[in-house]
Amino acid sequence: MATKVNAVIGQSGGPTAVINQSLVGAVLELKRHPQVGSILGARHGVRGIINGDFIPLENTPADLLERVAQTPSAALGSTRDKPDEAYCQKILEAFKKHNVGYFLYIGGNDSADTARIVSEMADKAGHALHVYHIPKTIDNDLRTTDHCPGYGSAGRFVALALMGDDADNRSLKGVKIDVIMGRDAGWLTAATALARYDSTDGPHLIYVPEVNFNEDQFLGDVDRVYTKLGRCVIAVSEGIRYRAGDKASLVAERIMTGGEVDAHGNKQLSGTGALGDYLGELVKTKLGVALQAKTGGKLRVRADTFGYLQRSFPTIVSPADAAEARLCGHKAVEYALTSPQGLASGSVAMKRISEAPYKIEMFPTALTNVARLTKPLDTGFVVKGCDINETYLKYARPLVGELFRPGRLI
Amino acid sequence: MATKVNAVIGQSGGPTAVINQSLVGAVLELKRHPQVGSILGARHGVRGIINGDFIPLENTPADLLERVAQTPSAALGSTRDKPDEAYCQKILEAFKKHNVGYFLYIGGNDSADTARIVSEMADKAGHALHVYHIPKTIDNDLRTTDHCPGYGSAGRFVALALMGDDADNRSLKGVKIDVIMGRDAGWLTAATALARYDSTDGPHLIYVPEVNFNEDQFLGDVDRVYTKLGRCVIAVSEGIRYRAGDKASLVAERIMTGGEVDAHGNKQLSGTGALGDYLGELVKTKLGVALQAKTGGKLRVRADTFGYLQRSFPTIVSPADAAEARLCGHKAVEYALTSPQGLASGSVAMKRISEAPYKIEMFPTALTNVARLTKPLDTGFVVKGCDINETYLKYARPLVGELFRPGRLI
Repeated sequence: MATKVNAVIGQSGGPTAVINQSLVGAVLELKRHPQVGSILGARHGVRGIINGDFIPLENTPADLLERVAQTPSAALGSTRDKPDEAYCQKILEAFKKHNVGYFLYIGGNDSADTARIVSEMADKAGHALHVYHIPKTIDNDLRTTDHCPGYGSAGRFVALALMGDDADNRSLKGVKIDVIMGRDAGWLTAATALARYDSTDGPHLIYVPEVNFNEDQFLGDVDRVYTKLGRCVIAVSEGIRYRAGDKASLVAERIMTGGEVDAHGNKQLSGTGALGDYLGELVKTKLGVALQAKTGGKLRVRADTFGYLQRSFPTIVSPADAAEARLCGHKAVEYALTSPQGLASGSVAMKRISEAPYKIEMFPTALTNVARLTKPLDTGFVVKGCDINETYLKYARPLVGELFRPGRLI
Repeated sequence: MATKVNAVIGQSGGPTAVINQSLVGAVLELKRHPQVGSILGARHGVRGIINGDFIPLENTPADLLERVAQTPSAALGSTRDKPDEAYCQKILEAFKKHNVGYFLYIGGNDSADTARIVSEMADKAGHALHVYHIPKTIDNDLRTTDHCPGYGSAGRFVALALMGDDADNRSLKGVKIDVIMGRDAGWLTAATALARYDSTDGPHLIYVPEVNFNEDQFLGDVDRVYTKLGRCVIAVSEGIRYRAGDKASLVAERIMTGGEVDAHGNKQLSGTGALGDYLGELVKTKLGVALQAKTGGKLRVRADTFGYLQRSFPTIVSPADAAEARLCGHKAVEYALTSPQGLASGSVAMKRISEAPYKIEMFPTALTNVARLTKPLDTGFVVKGCDINETYLKYARPLVGELFRPGRLI
């Protein structure tokens, strides 16, 4: 009879509405396999591992697990730590100490890289360890996979938010700027395009980080839409950039004085209204007089920064996203235990095998195919630098699920 | 046989998630009465009336009306116009011209005042006009009524938002500041207290406009909570004020350079992240070093301003609120047609007649009981200037409906 080994599971990076589905999927699958001993939930990801701060999960009641699965945000706690080799060495030592043979890590590309380093170190040290990364990010920017668990629900939130905000703007006209999460990738901002049913619906303009942001062009776009409709709803990524040749600089960084830099050297963009306020002022200052003259009334300009609601609002969950996140947890354990295609370690990825009906298939992929690098929004989806096309919408609709259908009188 | 007269219905002020329920309730009730001729929807409230800009509603298909009822934001368009006597004179002239005998106006205290002026002018001019105000405001600040249609759904949104945000903060610890709508009244901010299930749940601190905002006290509160829990979630009204004797000044106004003033002479507070960013900076600057020393890690401070999502997000609707808003529309028409208690004109109000089960009764009240003045949050609900007590929670629970129950592992 084989000796039992323990499993560690952790969550990392920005939470999503369905990250706990993956956690619960993995825990339930781990419980099905007799070769797995304890299931150790690491508090706050890798930090919990090196501190020996674990929660035993094998006896967690089924009804609590189900409630956890429905709850947004990382139930085990998350971390922004990005381990270097020395840190990973400590992880490996903790795994030896706690007799850990399986490590499941739910996170984005940085977490996949942590998984890769730990896995390679274990191989070198001759420690039998199967490491599986479970993809998670509202940014949808992981390579190899068709899309990422967490994206569909965040996309659903921003699409619904824009529907409501467009109705609000239709009722009290003006220019409305909504700032959406996504430092490097415009995927989430693109999802706001799903809010539209007809040609007068907002968002009327959409700006993503993958395309140069030019203020004159932006003002020209706003002028054009406002002159036509008497109003203008704009979705803009927090990560929009000025580009010149190879150089790119964040609009938000240029306008922010001070501000915070995270462990990855990135300036904090979320949790501040600075970009929205800057763009609002720009419109007021540069277009206020002209647009007032065109339409009679005083130009009303507002900006909202959606912030953390996008990733943590309860009850706004895409059914497909929740089911896929759960299944990713199951599959990660299955792959870790069976090493399909010789992959003792790897990441779970999704392939779209049918469009109508929408159907995906999961497969294991090497950690090097997911770690570090990211996948930007395909600029083929972007129209004239300020809109998103039907090709993207076809890709995204099944991910966010059926949306609300507004009724209109004007 | 009595001659038919026409009815005008309009919507005013900031939209809510259920303002169209009242519209649809009134339209359906108007259609039941043979003495009513055309049902004229005024585009953008009083502005549509003086411009003769009406949408005939008597033949609107039932399924479209139902979709409209489910859609947030004012389906007829809204207005911020606050009519003076001359403006009201034009309204009356339009009513004469279009043979209008019933005027239903959905809005807050300013709209009730418009209704009052128009009603009094009509009486003086000998024009037979029944004017009924239908209450609507996420601010919950109308006098006479137990609560206002629109409040329950907005309260539901902010309570759910805080639940999600608290889970997010539990997962990635730090100080989080959420700025909630409510220039003068703390009712909506108070509703964030519904997000809590146990003593470690956020929001840990709640600040409303009715109580003096003292920065030293605020910093002391944050220090206390953070030292105890290693994190702190704060809900703060956009309308918090510094008070000294009889004088009060908005914190947001003091820190904002420039900014916009509306038709009522109020500075625009929503649609900007300035207050949240200011409070975040205050915490970082004044407490950063001390709190870092206490807890080891770098102090993480974020601020989100919920903005228009609070009043216009589709699908987040309190069932009781939707039903009451619909019934208010029906009742307004019933009262306008029957002049109960001799009130040919008035406003619809609600009285709570039972707590368990929750039950309300509608009644007509004079426009003077609702117009102009507002009802602040009872400061008896406020604890130590930074929290909300159980008495408020009992009042509010049936209004927002059953909330999400999170599952937790840490």
